[in-house]
Amino acid sequence: MKLTINQKDKNSKYHLILEAAVKVFARHGFYQSTVAEIAKEAGVADGTIYLYFKNKDDIIVQFFSYRTRQVFDRFRAEVAKAGNSLDRLRNLIRRHLAEFQRDRDMAIVYQVETHQYSRLAEEQIREMSQMYQDLVAEIVETGQQEGRIRKDLYVGLVKRFILGAVDEVINTWLHSDGKYDLVTMADPLVDLFIRGIGVVDKKEA
Amino acid sequence: MKLTINQKDKNSKYHLILEAAVKVFARHGFYQSTVAEIAKEAGVADGTIYLYFKNKDDIIVQFFSYRTRQVFDRFRAEVAKAGNSLDRLRNLIRRHLAEFQRDRDMAIVYQVETHQYSRLAEEQIREMSQMYQDLVAEIVETGQQEGRIRKDLYVGLVKRFILGAVDEVINTWLHSDGKYDLVTMADPLVDLFIRGIGVVDKKEA
Repeated sequence: MKLTINQKDKNSKYHLILEAAVKVFARHGFYQSTVAEIAKEAGVADGTIYLYFKNKDDIIVQFFSYRTRQVFDRFRAEVAKAGNSLDRLRNLIRRHLAEFQRDRDMAIVYQVETHQYSRLAEEQIREMSQMYQDLVAEIVETGQQEGRIRKDLYVGLVKRFILGAVDEVINTWLHSDGKYDLVTMADPLVDLFIRGIGVVDKKEA
Repeated sequence: MKLTINQKDKNSKYHLILEAAVKVFARHGFYQSTVAEIAKEAGVADGTIYLYFKNKDDIIVQFFSYRTRQVFDRFRAEVAKAGNSLDRLRNLIRRHLAEFQRDRDMAIVYQVETHQYSRLAEEQIREMSQMYQDLVAEIVETGQQEGRIRKDLYVGLVKRFILGAVDEVINTWLHSDGKYDLVTMADPLVDLFIRGIGVVDKKEA
């Protein structure tokens, strides 16, 4: 029995299994998790998993495809609400932190898997990273046209600079057992992106 | 047979095994690697490994302790060479990128292990991260006294902002198969840290 993407979207068991899998992966790590544990967490028979997924590897690959689409729809909606490039950047970072805070299991699985060297969901992660970088590049380029963002920037580096700093802030929060409100970090972080840490030399400005 | 740290330092087999282990972990990932493969890579008998290490987990823990000390000695030496806080930051970031470029296997193992949720070398990673953050904090605080770095910063966030951006630049380089010179990224990255991406408003400056 093979399901097409459209059939899968309509099928609540498919999503149920994905959400259960992420809980199990977050708890035990991907390699130590078993399909049996995922089935138990989802409340389905082991065999049901194999109606939707080839194996454990396929579950993590499908999870990245599914969740990326979902999260990016939200990112784009927030970005579209802002009136200028600096507010668009602010809305993106706020939503980014909010999504990870809201779903801690996803945050754990995402942080671990994206930093693997041999990644199971290699193609999905590349696509996701590309989507994020495209969104940042679009904001930066509009900001340059608006005269709000410096024109002498290497945009390829700016994208990694922003993604890396946000990831680290999320990673620190995860390892702190989420004791503080992650989203309160968004505005100070955006201020660092925009103004940097240096004192402005008035003669140069 | 138990060795003390001092005896270990003098023992070249201990270091030989650590370096071999990192090669094997980088190639196959930690979980899929075996002590037998490490022994083969190091050119020693399997039993020799157990003279120095309790098990595979102990190897990665010891690796982090050993390499952290080594790399931080170099960081501090570079930082000490600079005459002001902005150059100290520049020297730190240059050396950071240079160390990872020089030892790609270490870079792979470091990036993967530091982003695990359940980390084997938890204590060593916390200590390493603390040492890095202390070094950045020291540079930032001196810069504030010198009038080169803004006083209205949340230093706790600045440290993560810098570490995260550098890590992401290294991670992107690793996943690109190291096709470009990582160290050339240091100066543009430091420029982003110091000046940010925003256009300076002359009225405010």
